[in-house]
Amino acid sequence: MQRVAPRTLSGFMELLPANQMKFDRMVEIIQDSFSVYGFTPLDTPVVEAAEVLLAKGGGETEKQIYRMTKGDNDLALRFDLTVPLAKYVAQHYGQLTFPFRRFQIGKVYRGERAQRGRFREFYQADIDVIGDGKLAVINEAEIPGVIYHTFRALGLEDFVIRVNNRKILNGLFQSIGLENHATGIMQTVDKLEKIGRERVEDTLVGDFNVPKVDAERLLDLLTSSQRGASPVAILAPYMGQNELLDTGIEELLTVAKYMEAFGVPDTHFTVDLTIARGLDYYTGTVYETIIPSHPEIGSICSGGRYDNLAEYYTDKQLPGVGISIGLTRLFYVLEEQKYLNDTLLTAPADALILPMTDDWGTAIAFATALRHTGIRTQVYGEDKKFKAKMGYADKLGIPYVVFLGEDEIAQGKVTVKDMVTGAQETVTAREAAERIAAGVKLRKSAKPICQS
Amino acid sequence: MQRVAPRTLSGFMELLPANQMKFDRMVEIIQDSFSVYGFTPLDTPVVEAAEVLLAKGGGETEKQIYRMTKGDNDLALRFDLTVPLAKYVAQHYGQLTFPFRRFQIGKVYRGERAQRGRFREFYQADIDVIGDGKLAVINEAEIPGVIYHTFRALGLEDFVIRVNNRKILNGLFQSIGLENHATGIMQTVDKLEKIGRERVEDTLVGDFNVPKVDAERLLDLLTSSQRGASPVAILAPYMGQNELLDTGIEELLTVAKYMEAFGVPDTHFTVDLTIARGLDYYTGTVYETIIPSHPEIGSICSGGRYDNLAEYYTDKQLPGVGISIGLTRLFYVLEEQKYLNDTLLTAPADALILPMTDDWGTAIAFATALRHTGIRTQVYGEDKKFKAKMGYADKLGIPYVVFLGEDEIAQGKVTVKDMVTGAQETVTAREAAERIAAGVKLRKSAKPICQS
Repeated sequence: MQRVAPRTLSGFMELLPANQMKFDRMVEIIQDSFSVYGFTPLDTPVVEAAEVLLAKGGGETEKQIYRMTKGDNDLALRFDLTVPLAKYVAQHYGQLTFPFRRFQIGKVYRGERAQRGRFREFYQADIDVIGDGKLAVINEAEIPGVIYHTFRALGLEDFVIRVNNRKILNGLFQSIGLENHATGIMQTVDKLEKIGRERVEDTLVGDFNVPKVDAERLLDLLTSSQRGASPVAILAPYMGQNELLDTGIEELLTVAKYMEAFGVPDTHFTVDLTIARGLDYYTGTVYETIIPSHPEIGSICSGGRYDNLAEYYTDKQLPGVGISIGLTRLFYVLEEQKYLNDTLLTAPADALILPMTDDWGTAIAFATALRHTGIRTQVYGEDKKFKAKMGYADKLGIPYVVFLGEDEIAQGKVTVKDMVTGAQETVTAREAAERIAAGVKLRKSAKPICQS
Repeated sequence: MQRVAPRTLSGFMELLPANQMKFDRMVEIIQDSFSVYGFTPLDTPVVEAAEVLLAKGGGETEKQIYRMTKGDNDLALRFDLTVPLAKYVAQHYGQLTFPFRRFQIGKVYRGERAQRGRFREFYQADIDVIGDGKLAVINEAEIPGVIYHTFRALGLEDFVIRVNNRKILNGLFQSIGLENHATGIMQTVDKLEKIGRERVEDTLVGDFNVPKVDAERLLDLLTSSQRGASPVAILAPYMGQNELLDTGIEELLTVAKYMEAFGVPDTHFTVDLTIARGLDYYTGTVYETIIPSHPEIGSICSGGRYDNLAEYYTDKQLPGVGISIGLTRLFYVLEEQKYLNDTLLTAPADALILPMTDDWGTAIAFATALRHTGIRTQVYGEDKKFKAKMGYADKLGIPYVVFLGEDEIAQGKVTVKDMVTGAQETVTAREAAERIAAGVKLRKSAKPICQS
C-alpha cells in the first residue's frame, strides 16, 4: 500500500494528551469566569461567505485570509471573532436583548508567515458587551474586573492591567494641533515600549512633521504616568480646554473609581497614558495586560471601547466594549516559561480497575458504580502480564489502581493501590470510592498556571 | 457606506443565545460522560494537508471535501474525526500509551446537497479505543455502557442500542457460499429497515445472483431476531461449521454477557442480526442507536470495531472500536420534536443587580461578592426607566433581580425579587446569595432533553 507520511501543518498546534488536558482546563476556567460575569456563550460558523468576512476589506486581512471556492460559493475561514459577532448582531438584531453580553472561545485562521510561537490556527477567547444606540461607561469599568478574575482563576499572579482612554490621547493631540495625524501618531506612540522613546520621537518629527519641542512635551507628558505621577495631576492643567479630553479624563476616572468594587486590587491595575492599542476602531477606554517579569511576551489580553460594531452590515449604531485573549499563543508561552502546573492531574482516569478472575462481572460492576459517583474509571482488559498492566497506569499517571481477585470478591471488597505512595489496602467498595474521590479532588481542581 | 447583507451560509447552524445554552449544556454532559469512562480529550486541527486527509481517497469524500490552496499548500477541512485520529496516532505513536482512549467533540465539514436538517458544518462527538497490535473484545462490550450512560445523562429515555457482529454476517455469507459479494450483500441487508424486505430480496437476487431460496433463508434467519427469537438459538445450528461465524457468535455473547455489569438494562439493548452499518472498515461488533418512537430519525449514535485504523499512514497494526454522535443533527431533531427541556435555565445570568443610588460602589461590590460564590451576575448600568430595566431581566429570563437603594445600603441589606413568583424581600447579602444559589440550582443542573 502507498502510504502518506502523517503530519500536522506548520503553525497548527496539536497537543499530546497531558498538555491537551491542561489546555482544556484553561478553557474551562475561562468559560466559567466569563459566565460568572453574565456573558452568554455563542458559537458562530468557522466558515462564512468571503463577502461577509471581508466587508470592511483592507490590507493584512485580505492577504492572510484562508479563502476557497465550493460550488458557486466564495468562502473564507474567520480570522477573528469580532467580525462574526458584528454579522451575528446585525443579522439577529430583532431577536437579541441589549446590552448584549456574549463570550466566544473558538479557533480563528490567519495565514501569517510561519515562525516559532506564531500560529495560523489559534484560539481566541473574547467577551463583548454591545449596546443598542448607547452603552454606559460603567461597562468599561467592569472589563478589568473580568480580566483580573479570569487570570487569577487560571493561577496567574504576576500581571498588570494597563488602562488608558483614546479620548485623552485624541484630545491632547487636538489641543496641541496634531489632530490631522491622530491615528498615525497614536500608532507610533503605542510602539514606545517596543522601539523606545528615541525612535518614536524621530518618527513623530520625521513622518508627521511634529515640531521637536511638541514631540518632546507630548512624550514627557504621556510617559510621566509610567514614572509614578498621578494621571489626574498630569492632566489637570489641560482640563477645560478641550471637550474630548475632558470626557476622556472623566471616563478614565470612572473606570479607576470602580476598579476596587469590581474586585481589582491596585497592585494589578495601572493607568498608563502611553497605551493606545493598534486597532483603529477603538474610541474610548483601551486595555492591555502584561506580565511585568516578561515584557517580551507583550499583551496577553487586550481590547477596548468602540462606537460602531457593525457599520458594514447595518445602519444601527451598536457601540460596545470587548477584550480578547490569544489563548493558543498564551498556552505556548506559558509552557515555554515552564509556568504550567505539573501537579494538575492529566491522566485520562482517576482509577484503573484490574480484574483478576475469569468472570469480570464483579470488576465491571464496580467500575460502573465508581463511574456513577463521577470518578473517571478505566477497566484494563488487555491480556498482558501484571507488570505491563501496572506500567500502563504508571506511564499515564493514573493515581489509583484497584484489584478485584477471588479473595476480594469473596469478602465483598476491593484492593486499592495508591500509585504515588505505593500504599495498598483492602476496603469496601464505598470506602474505595471515597478514598479515590478525596485523593484526586485537589489535583483535579488545581489551577493550570503556577508561576512559583 | 456600501453595506453587505449579514447572512449565515446555508447548512451552517448558528443558534440564538437560549438555544446555544441548551446546545452547550449537551456538549458539557457528553464531555463529562466520556471523561467518566476514562477517555482523554483531543483537539486536532480543522485544517489539514489535503494529501493527508485524502490518503484513503475515494468517491463521496473527495466530492464533498472543502479544499483550498494557500501559498504552496493544498489544504482541506476535516470531514470526520476518525481520519485526523488515524493521523494523530500514527504521527505521535511513540509518545502515546496503548490502549489509547480518546474523545473528541468538534466541527467537521461536508459539502452535501443543502436540505432541511442536513448540515455542511456539524459537530461530531467521538470516542475510540485504539490498541497496539491487539485489542481485547471487552472494549467492544464497554461501548454500549458509554452510549447508555451518555444518553441517560442528557435526559433521553426512549432509545435502544442495537448490536450485531460483522463476523457473524460474513461467516453466514461464507457458509452459504456468498463470500464473493460479502460487502455488497452487507450494505444491501443494512437497508432492510429503510427500503423493506422485498426490495432487499430483489437486490440480492438481481444484483448479486443469490438464488431466491438462499436470499429468503438468509433474510428469514437475520430478521428472526427482530421477531423475538434468541440470537443464540437462531445461530446454534450454524456453529462449528465456520470459524469466522463461531468467533462472531462468541464475541457477541461476550458483549451481551457484560452488558448489565456495564450498566445497560435489557430494555435499552438488543441484538439485531440485520444491523450491518454502511462503512466498509468495520470487522467485528457494530452498533447503532435508535429512538423507537421516531424510526425516521435513523441512528443517533453508531460505530463499531475495526482492525486497522491507520493503514494509510503507518505499517503498525492499530485495531480499535469507536462510536460517533452526530450532535448538530441530533440537536436539530430534538428541537423539531420539541424534546428540548424548556425548564433549563438559559438566561445569561442568575441575578441582575440594579444600583439605585448615585454612587454605585456598594452595588458593584455586592455583584463582585456574588460572582465570587459562583453566581452568574450582571450589573445593569444603562440609563433607562425602571420598567425598561425590569423588562430586560424579564426578556432574558433572569430569575432574580437585586435592588440596592439608599435604604438597603443604610441597613447593610439588599432587596431580592424572584422574577418567577414576583415575591420581593429585603435580606442580608449572605442570605441573598444563598437564596439565589438555591433557586437556580435545580434549573441549572436540569437535563437538556425532556421527552415527556
